[in-house]
Amino acid sequence: MKLYYARMAPNPDRVRYFLQEKGVWDQVEKTEISIMKNEHRTPEYRKISPLSHVPVLELGEGAGLTESRAICTYFEGLYPEPNLMGRDAVERATIEMWDRRIELGYFMMIAGWFRNSHPAMAELEKPQSAEWAGISEGRARKAITFFDKRLGEAEYVAGDRFTIADITLHVALGFGKIVKFKPWEEHANLAAWRERVSVRPGLKI
Amino acid sequence: MKLYYARMAPNPDRVRYFLQEKGVWDQVEKTEISIMKNEHRTPEYRKISPLSHVPVLELGEGAGLTESRAICTYFEGLYPEPNLMGRDAVERATIEMWDRRIELGYFMMIAGWFRNSHPAMAELEKPQSAEWAGISEGRARKAITFFDKRLGEAEYVAGDRFTIADITLHVALGFGKIVKFKPWEEHANLAAWRERVSVRPGLKI
Repeated sequence: MKLYYARMAPNPDRVRYFLQEKGVWDQVEKTEISIMKNEHRTPEYRKISPLSHVPVLELGEGAGLTESRAICTYFEGLYPEPNLMGRDAVERATIEMWDRRIELGYFMMIAGWFRNSHPAMAELEKPQSAEWAGISEGRARKAITFFDKRLGEAEYVAGDRFTIADITLHVALGFGKIVKFKPWEEHANLAAWRERVSVRPGLKI
Repeated sequence: MKLYYARMAPNPDRVRYFLQEKGVWDQVEKTEISIMKNEHRTPEYRKISPLSHVPVLELGEGAGLTESRAICTYFEGLYPEPNLMGRDAVERATIEMWDRRIELGYFMMIAGWFRNSHPAMAELEKPQSAEWAGISEGRARKAITFFDKRLGEAEYVAGDRFTIADITLHVALGFGKIVKFKPWEEHANLAAWRERVSVRPGLKI
């Protein structure tokens, strides 16, 4: 088993924080890939990650496991404690709901905003759509007010304990800095949650 | 427990096909919501689905469970057979990877294409971006060639048996008809897979 990952990239960071929260990041064999040097586009890398996605978890011969959340699902099975994805059907479904709301409603809006507006993405994202960047920005700004309200009613995103949904929000907020969006500066519940989670050893850089 | 759903809408259909494959669709208490009549935007509906999402599964007092895949996760726990989401960590992760690849790489491109180009969506999607519709169309056309190749190597999307990933692809292909995109007409492996799954009682309209 080997994890191919990248530094300073949001999806690889979701897996890294997940493994750090499990306390097993240092035990997993890893190889760092440079996206800037296009190391994820070599024929050799594509054998394990045919869509050039990073991260990928090599499990044996042939193609490996991609999609950060699916990699987390695998590690949740391998290292069940501390539980981050739910213990029974209701909890698993509730955590998945909140994780998806963060990912689809906020994280992806930040991605749409960044990829379609940032000069650093001009080469990777062809064509960029300034119009879509603007629509995504508006949706990100609207979505975060919903999550701020949620965090006034619950201590953590999915309820009364820390889960993968908090990791996804943590990564998404960090990702937003690249478009200078720091919603915790104007949303008090979000700011309080951010203080609560940022002291966790598992969420350290 | 009560499911609020809509007809002829892709996300509600993911849950409906999932429950039909489980053989329990008729047993679940249901209420039909008309999106066209804006029944998902009433204050009463928002009490159980604060983001006006359809479907929602009411489980008790207060807000219910939204996000189609999370609702499927709940039902997978309630009715484990036939298994549609994986039996062990590797299988659960592999199925989730393929399900996400279909959803994020294809289903969402069809959604971006449709919502930003179709006259029927002009009122719901403001502003529409013709530019983003075009980019989404290009990505959908590219993505489906990858899944056609996959279906030349595996009998079903996630491997050698029918899973939730096949339901997501089935729904996404149906959804694409609204923008007149019928990729099975030019992709032989996809066409063969479509013939294999379309005879399943669980995937009937």
